[in-house]
Amino acid sequence: MFKPYFKNQGGPPPLKVVCERTVRLEEVDALGIVWHGRYAGYLEDGREEMGRRYGLTYLDFKEAGAILPIRRLHVDYLRPLLYLEKFSVECLLHWHEAARLNMEYRVLKTDGQLASRGYSIQMMVDLSGELLLETPPFFQEFQRHWREGTLKPCG
Amino acid sequence: MFKPYFKNQGGPPPLKVVCERTVRLEEVDALGIVWHGRYAGYLEDGREEMGRRYGLTYLDFKEAGAILPIRRLHVDYLRPLLYLEKFSVECLLHWHEAARLNMEYRVLKTDGQLASRGYSIQMMVDLSGELLLETPPFFQEFQRHWREGTLKPCG
Amino acid sequence: MFKPYFKNQGGPPPLKVVCERTVRLEEVDALGIVWHGRYAGYLEDGREEMGRRYGLTYLDFKEAGAILPIRRLHVDYLRPLLYLEKFSVECLLHWHEAARLNMEYRVLKTDGQLASRGYSIQMMVDLSGELLLETPPFFQEFQRHWREGTLKPCG
Amino acid sequence: MFKPYFKNQGGPPPLKVVCERTVRLEEVDALGIVWHGRYAGYLEDGREEMGRRYGLTYLDFKEAGAILPIRRLHVDYLRPLLYLEKFSVECLLHWHEAARLNMEYRVLKTDGQLASRGYSIQMMVDLSGELLLETPPFFQEFQRHWREGTLKPCG
Repeated sequence: MFKPYFKNQGGPPPLKVVCERTVRLEEVDALGIVWHGRYAGYLEDGREEMGRRYGLTYLDFKEAGAILPIRRLHVDYLRPLLYLEKFSVECLLHWHEAARLNMEYRVLKTDGQLASRGYSIQMMVDLSGELLLETPPFFQEFQRHWREGTLKPCG
Repeated sequence: MFKPYFKNQGGPPPLKVVCERTVRLEEVDALGIVWHGRYAGYLEDGREEMGRRYGLTYLDFKEAGAILPIRRLHVDYLRPLLYLEKFSVECLLHWHEAARLNMEYRVLKTDGQLASRGYSIQMMVDLSGELLLETPPFFQEFQRHWREGTLKPCG
Repeated sequence: MFKPYFKNQGGPPPLKVVCERTVRLEEVDALGIVWHGRYAGYLEDGREEMGRRYGLTYLDFKEAGAILPIRRLHVDYLRPLLYLEKFSVECLLHWHEAARLNMEYRVLKTDGQLASRGYSIQMMVDLSGELLLETPPFFQEFQRHWREGTLKPCG
Repeated sequence: MFKPYFKNQGGPPPLKVVCERTVRLEEVDALGIVWHGRYAGYLEDGREEMGRRYGLTYLDFKEAGAILPIRRLHVDYLRPLLYLEKFSVECLLHWHEAARLNMEYRVLKTDGQLASRGYSIQMMVDLSGELLLETPPFFQEFQRHWREGTLKPCG
């Protein structure tokens, strides 16, 4: 129904995590709905959950001498979220060979309908800002398990 | 150099406003640079300036029985902004015949280099959320002046 | 050990709720700790939980023709919260006869130590901003149950 | 009229800076007024202006091996600020002999009436979090000029 954000790169199917949230008062704007700019934080909640689950937080990358700046953030807004509404953020990590993380997001309303969908692109760079020619060993290990279906998520 | 975000729709050239800002302490993240999610607010500063200058604020639309939800927000990040850095936000309104606002943004660092660029799409809907079949009279008047080159920006 | 924020007003002991949170990336500042201004939102998480549990949300008051503006917010900071740290917010509602809500807060680190403590004062006003001479009937009912020990918290 | 937040410590009169702001859309809550938690950022705008004007930013202290955590933030809310309202933040630095900064704030509406007032207390600590026994030399120099009336603010 929706145009996919990423082309299939020939790897294993995407990894998926979900986190549950409730709209906080400070996130609501003068129209009584969540201000569009708050979704950057909501998607980050999903991305952080992905990082925590699979050992891909920015602290993990920092230990390997890399950082993960966001290069692109894209959000399509479909339906508003309301004050106190319970919603969920789905985050999918798509396979890619290069030193980058392609993530897709779906924000679902209480009734299961899409509030928004979007994607982010992060590049792995070293501390001087240069793109990594090769991904860090811990990430290669993660990718190997992902491809072979032997990933052990934590938590 | 960069791929344009919007196709030319055959109308007059885009309108442009600029606003100046300084990075505030609360906008900086653990890496000492502006958190990517703050750019939604920065772009809104540009969009608000456009609205104020040309009578297109959400209060103007509300008086005409319309609201202007954001349908898409897209940001490409090129270079970080630092704490206390002075930067400018350029906002361009692109011509479109339909009941929508297509805006493009450029965030420029103190040295004039691009920190980020992006775009937003807003739809004009009535208070029940239905897409307007026809734009409000005040907006048609605005478009007529825009096309004829007789716009009088305020401020 | 700490000076109490509110004098005992001779009513029943305070009501207490607790909510659990994790520090989000966007809440951390350039020093890697939670920016002091985020605590207003953390305390509000506690206050909202109190409202939800005892039927005292701003929607409940709105139905009774009243709003609950914050008149004072006070926060004492003792220890920093770190990125990803799990913490809890305790919110206590202190008894008061007047048309006001006196709440006290404690933000506790993972190890149980105090990160911060604070209080807020809210006044009940009508829609024109005048202080209520009498609290709404639903609130008097709530206070009666509180005094008699027959409150039935939800959730 | 209002009770002062700080006792006179026998030093020179307080230093004062003012900065001008406009309420941004993202700062407004569901009631159409500025959310109370945003004032922490507004007061910080004043504090940052004080730091910039007199060489007291957190970067200045960092160079001297010190940081300036907020120990207390107190805000009294008197009148709401509205969307697009122009307002000013006055920040006063009060004299104190100890290794601390006592600042007072007044947020003024367009019509000059008080929207809120408040104060903050910051302690000077070293990088391990210990309170400084002696203020940094650059700060003593600053205090000497302040006392002798020979301060040269920048900007």
